[in-house]
Amino acid sequence: MPNMQNDPLVIAGTEYQSRLLTGTGKYKDLEETRAATEAAGAEIVTIAIRRSNIGQNPNEPNLLEVLPPDRYTILPNTAGCYTAEDAVRTCKLARELLDGHNLVKLEVLGDEKTLYPDVTATLEAAETLIKDGFQVMVYTSDDPIIAKRLEEMGCVAVMPLAAPIGSGLGIQNRYNIIEIVENANVPILVDAGVGTASDAAIAMEMGCDGVLMNTAIAAAKDPVLMASAMKKAIEAGREAYRAGRVPRKRYASASSPLEGTFF
Amino acid sequence: MPNMQNDPLVIAGTEYQSRLLTGTGKYKDLEETRAATEAAGAEIVTIAIRRSNIGQNPNEPNLLEVLPPDRYTILPNTAGCYTAEDAVRTCKLARELLDGHNLVKLEVLGDEKTLYPDVTATLEAAETLIKDGFQVMVYTSDDPIIAKRLEEMGCVAVMPLAAPIGSGLGIQNRYNIIEIVENANVPILVDAGVGTASDAAIAMEMGCDGVLMNTAIAAAKDPVLMASAMKKAIEAGREAYRAGRVPRKRYASASSPLEGTFF
Amino acid sequence: MPNMQNDPLVIAGTEYQSRLLTGTGKYKDLEETRAATEAAGAEIVTIAIRRSNIGQNPNEPNLLEVLPPDRYTILPNTAGCYTAEDAVRTCKLARELLDGHNLVKLEVLGDEKTLYPDVTATLEAAETLIKDGFQVMVYTSDDPIIAKRLEEMGCVAVMPLAAPIGSGLGIQNRYNIIEIVENANVPILVDAGVGTASDAAIAMEMGCDGVLMNTAIAAAKDPVLMASAMKKAIEAGREAYRAGRVPRKRYASASSPLEGTFF
Amino acid sequence: MPNMQNDPLVIAGTEYQSRLLTGTGKYKDLEETRAATEAAGAEIVTIAIRRSNIGQNPNEPNLLEVLPPDRYTILPNTAGCYTAEDAVRTCKLARELLDGHNLVKLEVLGDEKTLYPDVTATLEAAETLIKDGFQVMVYTSDDPIIAKRLEEMGCVAVMPLAAPIGSGLGIQNRYNIIEIVENANVPILVDAGVGTASDAAIAMEMGCDGVLMNTAIAAAKDPVLMASAMKKAIEAGREAYRAGRVPRKRYASASSPLEGTFF
Repeated sequence: MPNMQNDPLVIAGTEYQSRLLTGTGKYKDLEETRAATEAAGAEIVTIAIRRSNIGQNPNEPNLLEVLPPDRYTILPNTAGCYTAEDAVRTCKLARELLDGHNLVKLEVLGDEKTLYPDVTATLEAAETLIKDGFQVMVYTSDDPIIAKRLEEMGCVAVMPLAAPIGSGLGIQNRYNIIEIVENANVPILVDAGVGTASDAAIAMEMGCDGVLMNTAIAAAKDPVLMASAMKKAIEAGREAYRAGRVPRKRYASASSPLEGTFF
Repeated sequence: MPNMQNDPLVIAGTEYQSRLLTGTGKYKDLEETRAATEAAGAEIVTIAIRRSNIGQNPNEPNLLEVLPPDRYTILPNTAGCYTAEDAVRTCKLARELLDGHNLVKLEVLGDEKTLYPDVTATLEAAETLIKDGFQVMVYTSDDPIIAKRLEEMGCVAVMPLAAPIGSGLGIQNRYNIIEIVENANVPILVDAGVGTASDAAIAMEMGCDGVLMNTAIAAAKDPVLMASAMKKAIEAGREAYRAGRVPRKRYASASSPLEGTFF
Repeated sequence: MPNMQNDPLVIAGTEYQSRLLTGTGKYKDLEETRAATEAAGAEIVTIAIRRSNIGQNPNEPNLLEVLPPDRYTILPNTAGCYTAEDAVRTCKLARELLDGHNLVKLEVLGDEKTLYPDVTATLEAAETLIKDGFQVMVYTSDDPIIAKRLEEMGCVAVMPLAAPIGSGLGIQNRYNIIEIVENANVPILVDAGVGTASDAAIAMEMGCDGVLMNTAIAAAKDPVLMASAMKKAIEAGREAYRAGRVPRKRYASASSPLEGTFF
Repeated sequence: MPNMQNDPLVIAGTEYQSRLLTGTGKYKDLEETRAATEAAGAEIVTIAIRRSNIGQNPNEPNLLEVLPPDRYTILPNTAGCYTAEDAVRTCKLARELLDGHNLVKLEVLGDEKTLYPDVTATLEAAETLIKDGFQVMVYTSDDPIIAKRLEEMGCVAVMPLAAPIGSGLGIQNRYNIIEIVENANVPILVDAGVGTASDAAIAMEMGCDGVLMNTAIAAAKDPVLMASAMKKAIEAGREAYRAGRVPRKRYASASSPLEGTFF
């Protein structure tokens, strides 16, 4: 029976069986966060340090109680940061709160409306963080030149958006994502913009190494059921990628694949 | 934990847990047919009576040895029939070979190149078969008017194509499939044209009740792994449909969903 | 300077310079009908016999006063007919009103909501009309088998829909339209569903011989300006088709065209 | 009769009637360059200073003989430059060759294979050129944050790519182009990646102010006819944009536009 067990995702030297990374915001309560994260089968969970309590407020519920660090790899992120300085400061705070934990997800946003990344500030912050010993997984646009530069700089994973954060539009530019994937020597994880299960499967079929999502699960009508759907979609897309799909042809009897003029 | 167990597919009064129906042709040998069918988790398997040995040739390997009727619902089909008469005759032969089994998949093809259905001959054959006591699952185009007529005539499931048989192009006309699904009182199963896992997930997310495929699995480089991918994709798409996806918006902060002008 | 003058559209032996056929309904008044038709450069205008006055009511404004038959080829259509009988009767009425005029546009609708064609009734009506001496241009679905049958039966032009009448969705199934075009020996005109100029250009680039539209022009905010846009779009698409577009490639430097996996 | 005359494109204070800008490379000879440019109706023509002779080699044919500066606005570009320094130097050379002409098209490429722009070097070069008195029209990615920054810096037009130079793929990310257009106070011209007439029309329908293209015309089988097609497509798309298209709906009878789930 085929399985996923010989096909780990390796980030910064650590092996993961799951290729679905999840966010922890937007759930109605911590119990829903816990249940959806479990249904997603996530091993890496990302936490917005500026918005989530992981110990900053000792008198409030701590997210780490439902997502214990001995079970999940905690990935602090810099959501809400609009400058390199803010993002760097936020990563340092996270490291302190998490006892020296170096793995972070960097995002430096360009604009409050679209939450599109500011790639020049992102490059600057990534450089500073890497020099300071962080292992940087980096949210970026789908610009293949910027993606390559972030890899060359030493980021441990590059995370291009599919579409704007929270939009649910799915991959807008397949060309760029394929270009990034083909040129990469580090994991490429699609981050942001996935809306439903097929969007996640498509990302995996294109050769992405994983997908990170939050809104698509947390804002679905039934988040826990959607988490299960996403888990299966990620595995389905990965297996389809590895299995080698049939070529697209106009007919079963056509001798050569489509040249792609219209389909 | 969410699961699929309370969400059976019901065809002609029988409940199935799996929504993935598979074909049995194009595999390299019977062992691969068996392994892929098992990995797909299929409960209904369709067999081209004109091309497969289910007892017509007692001296050759019998497909039913690897797909035993006590484990699988055998769905004889009329692949290769270009007239209503041929299709009806083939169904009768199948019934005889299968000891009175009434469930059949009707297909009457219009053309050897595209294998597109001949809808007028299909209507004619369906009428004859239903009068003769068959339970007809019917392959058709994505024409909503014809689909409705086939349902009204008494077909137990209507099976519009996604794209030409063996093309791997995925759903070409989402408008028509949605129209058919919304108007239907019998199961709508997408039949033909699926290429990869996301294509199957999309069909399910649109509200289809199931998908039948053959080439996408059998002609993949690794058919057994692709069968597993398809199983998960069907479940993922179904769960996503039930879970209620997030609306598509231009931004997380946008107050209303997209009006669909360009995305 | 390249021009369109050596590239006429020939329907039933008559040459037309324009490949844009227009409907005459939904305008705010007859003057707007006249102005938009002129801006569109249409030579063939279609008239819903059941809804437009071309002489049935001598006391009301007559559409033929603004669209005189000595300047335009009048194409009576059977909009609003849901049976073959109704459609045949309407064509006969038109012939009478127009002094023996034989060219008609047949449409037999299947459903009041979608206005999708009823292809079996369409086949029946076409046969009757052709036997009775009509030159039948026929509105149909995008089913390639039905389209071919209508041609073989003697229809002088086959007019598959792009999308439902009045939807403005553009061509939903490019595969089928290309299939119809490649197999045809009579003009293929896309009828219904065009929303904007690029939709019309795409139809022409795919090799269609012309486009018929009504809502896209008449229901635009500025119908006369949209008529001008459509005229240019049809010419642009036709010229692009004749000029031979560049192949799609991933890069300028790529040696071979895309195999069409994702673009 | 509607016309384009009251709808000029204004770049750096100069009015143009044509919204189609053309490149001058890849033609088989200067006569074809001349004929295609004329058929395109272009008023602004861009010239790769590193590849075209506009006086650098007094003994060879001079491009300006067929495209005289008293008839066309010459737009020198920095094609082939991979650093900010190279691009700046090339612009200065152009200014010298063209007697103080300040209008330039800046492009700084990131990679020889895809010819994708290097946005950080582009920002740097744009800043230098603007300080030095150039009027900069700037080729960039479709990143809305970068596009806005280039505008704020003082570029007189921002020119996002549709797809890679020479690919003929058409607009890959409509979301980003719309975002750029809606936020802009300077003309947005789509530059690179257009393949055929409908691609150009779509860009205009989305509200772009113009399109610059070279390969799509010069590498078509009949470049002069394609130039004519592109002229009409640009006008068609612009007029359709101004005319206000019909909303997309599932049926003519549907009361509200589509919410964009699948079409």
